Amino acid sequence: MKKVFVISALITFLMAFTLPQQKQKIVFFGDSITQAGVKPGGYITVLGDLLKQKNIQDELIGAGIGGNKVYDLYLRMEDDVLAKNPTTVVIWVGVNDVWHKKTSGTGTDANKFEGFYNALIKKLQAKNIKVLICTPAAIGEKTDYTNELDGDLNKYAAMIREIAKKNNVALIDLRKAFLDYNLANNPENKDRNILTTDGVHLNDKGNQLVAEQMLKALYK
Amino acid sequence: MKKVFVISALITFLMAFTLPQQKQKIVFFGDSITQAGVKPGGYITVLGDLLKQKNIQDELIGAGIGGNKVYDLYLRMEDDVLAKNPTTVVIWVGVNDVWHKKTSGTGTDANKFEGFYNALIKKLQAKNIKVLICTPAAIGEKTDYTNELDGDLNKYAAMIREIAKKNNVALIDLRKAFLDYNLANNPENKDRNILTTDGVHLNDKGNQLVAEQMLKALYK
Amino acid sequence: MKKVFVISALITFLMAFTLPQQKQKIVFFGDSITQAGVKPGGYITVLGDLLKQKNIQDELIGAGIGGNKVYDLYLRMEDDVLAKNPTTVVIWVGVNDVWHKKTSGTGTDANKFEGFYNALIKKLQAKNIKVLICTPAAIGEKTDYTNELDGDLNKYAAMIREIAKKNNVALIDLRKAFLDYNLANNPENKDRNILTTDGVHLNDKGNQLVAEQMLKALYK
Amino acid sequence: MKKVFVISALITFLMAFTLPQQKQKIVFFGDSITQAGVKPGGYITVLGDLLKQKNIQDELIGAGIGGNKVYDLYLRMEDDVLAKNPTTVVIWVGVNDVWHKKTSGTGTDANKFEGFYNALIKKLQAKNIKVLICTPAAIGEKTDYTNELDGDLNKYAAMIREIAKKNNVALIDLRKAFLDYNLANNPENKDRNILTTDGVHLNDKGNQLVAEQMLKALYK
Repeated sequence: MKKVFVISALITFLMAFTLPQQKQKIVFFGDSITQAGVKPGGYITVLGDLLKQKNIQDELIGAGIGGNKVYDLYLRMEDDVLAKNPTTVVIWVGVNDVWHKKTSGTGTDANKFEGFYNALIKKLQAKNIKVLICTPAAIGEKTDYTNELDGDLNKYAAMIREIAKKNNVALIDLRKAFLDYNLANNPENKDRNILTTDGVHLNDKGNQLVAEQMLKALYK
Repeated sequence: MKKVFVISALITFLMAFTLPQQKQKIVFFGDSITQAGVKPGGYITVLGDLLKQKNIQDELIGAGIGGNKVYDLYLRMEDDVLAKNPTTVVIWVGVNDVWHKKTSGTGTDANKFEGFYNALIKKLQAKNIKVLICTPAAIGEKTDYTNELDGDLNKYAAMIREIAKKNNVALIDLRKAFLDYNLANNPENKDRNILTTDGVHLNDKGNQLVAEQMLKALYK
Repeated sequence: MKKVFVISALITFLMAFTLPQQKQKIVFFGDSITQAGVKPGGYITVLGDLLKQKNIQDELIGAGIGGNKVYDLYLRMEDDVLAKNPTTVVIWVGVNDVWHKKTSGTGTDANKFEGFYNALIKKLQAKNIKVLICTPAAIGEKTDYTNELDGDLNKYAAMIREIAKKNNVALIDLRKAFLDYNLANNPENKDRNILTTDGVHLNDKGNQLVAEQMLKALYK
Repeated sequence: MKKVFVISALITFLMAFTLPQQKQKIVFFGDSITQAGVKPGGYITVLGDLLKQKNIQDELIGAGIGGNKVYDLYLRMEDDVLAKNPTTVVIWVGVNDVWHKKTSGTGTDANKFEGFYNALIKKLQAKNIKVLICTPAAIGEKTDYTNELDGDLNKYAAMIREIAKKNNVALIDLRKAFLDYNLANNPENKDRNILTTDGVHLNDKGNQLVAEQMLKALYK
């Protein structure tokens, strides 16, 4: 009897080190930036490559749709996220909520942005899904606060930092990461072509930076 | 055998006239216009009085919140509508979806308006709730199509008429009713004070007209 | 003495019929629609052809710049109009004043539109230049008042009609002409391709219609 | 000969200190902030008091009208500025050009802002009038770049600094002065009540600060 127990314990002990942990199923939930993330070179693809190098076999699923604002995520969450039974969801939204105010008069009021964001998180947490949320990275890469929408985007980024705190979810502060990178690498104060192709959508360096930020937050 | 059948049929026939039908529980789901509808003189209050005169004992519940757009209704539908177990829901929304484009850059894109509206109806129909939907009545009462937002409001009203058809729900065409009334009663082409106090919110005549339109649609 | 007088009077009388009247120099002052008007097939070119058929030798000068609003005309009037010593100026502006509210948040307030328009006319009239003004033709060609900007465009067209009256200048009511034409020729309620290529800019039929309207107003 | 020269030089030297210089006539040309500037406690009034203390007898004239954008200044410059034969004009405009994009869709495009501003300066300089121009101070006083319109306002302030350089006119950098003051005196990151009552219009401290900035620029 004793022998059996010892061997069994030994096996369990060894398995903990050699067998894979429960595989995570991570859904990336967002807008056009995330829609592009699953393409070759996209941030989700890059992150997948980083995971392979580390022998992590988690499943990464893109759920980005161009033009999406926070309430669009809410509308399609059941079909596009919950139906996939994820263990983890990374939400990255906010650029269109600010940008569309200017381009089509259909942005999102700050208080409603907050209301929908909280509702998203609550629905996910109610299913025991781990949630991480991101600040919007950039609409324009200038570093002297003259990108036209900097003020409003900073305001929404600040809201998201608060939402993370209040809901006790991890924050991936892409806005800070992008600004820090640009302060170091954009001496000519250009509005694009540092981490983005057009001020918003990621170029290769941008995809690399986002993948690294995600890796750090998901596997710390 | 035959006798029993005749008596049974007779009882059924009498019951149809003498026994109360199942009481309806009607939720009015909308924006500030509906929020004001439950006040003294409001359209829901007026409708309640009309029902009393007809000895109808249906329950009328106001669920309007100022500033609401179609997606705000979607966000609070479970708490404010489904939780009340209504038999019937009247949706009246759209003014803010158009108006806020101009006043704060936070209106609702046409295709997203349609998407959320369809989602609202589907969720209610899935619970076997009877749905009626209204066109937005007015933003300005001028009859020569010079109210600043007439074009866009007509466009959204046309969308709602299509949504009613496609989803097979009853339509209460308040926009048509308001225009017809103004064509007959607003010879000076005023922008308010015919059916509204400010071009949007109802005065006494407006509350009366809406109550009558609702009565006709709910009890035809 | 008497004889001389009679002969002189006779000559004068004959000259009135046989000698050319003073040649008009007409500047067409406007936005992208007028900028395209001088191209082959453009409304100014078409009007020039109509004049040649009638043996009228007036000079037609295009002074349209894409994106112009009423205050842009005011800023460049000295260089682009007065410097050319015209006898006649046709002003056609208004589409961008309305449209840019939606597309970039930089349209023109109604009261300021009126103020600049009056200032334009006064400066031209002070130089004894004959002025004709046009209503904006269309932003969308649907006939059921569901073009998104119909309300505001109708409001600005109504203002221009008033401005014409108050300043005693001729009106070329292109908005009315376009609506009448569409009511007769656009049974499918299309938003373009009747008189325009995109709801705003003229196709061949549109250029023909505008040229005819201008001809009628300039040579009645 | 020599004696005469010495005496003449002496007189000239003494006159420089004892005779009054030519009195300046300074027009302050702007929007609602300048309209309030002539009221008791307003920045022009405060500046006038400072001048009295220094025994400077220049004439200060307010020419501010609420809601004015750069093109409104251009429209009324002849009547409200040139007609007064000023020696000096201080232009302070820009808040509404940015703000009205959001509140009514009628702000001013950046390139047109620049065009009208240059035209203003050229017209004044053509009359040998000394010109000073100001950056817009604030729409919100927060110091962490989360005032909603910070980005666009910074962009327009940067344009004005360039305009000053290119036209060789003095710059009064109120935006910088306000930000510096707030960085030192607004530790709670409030959006108003430091130098303004509402984020835009000046309180007593704001009027004092602006008067001092104007004094320094006008009398250096």
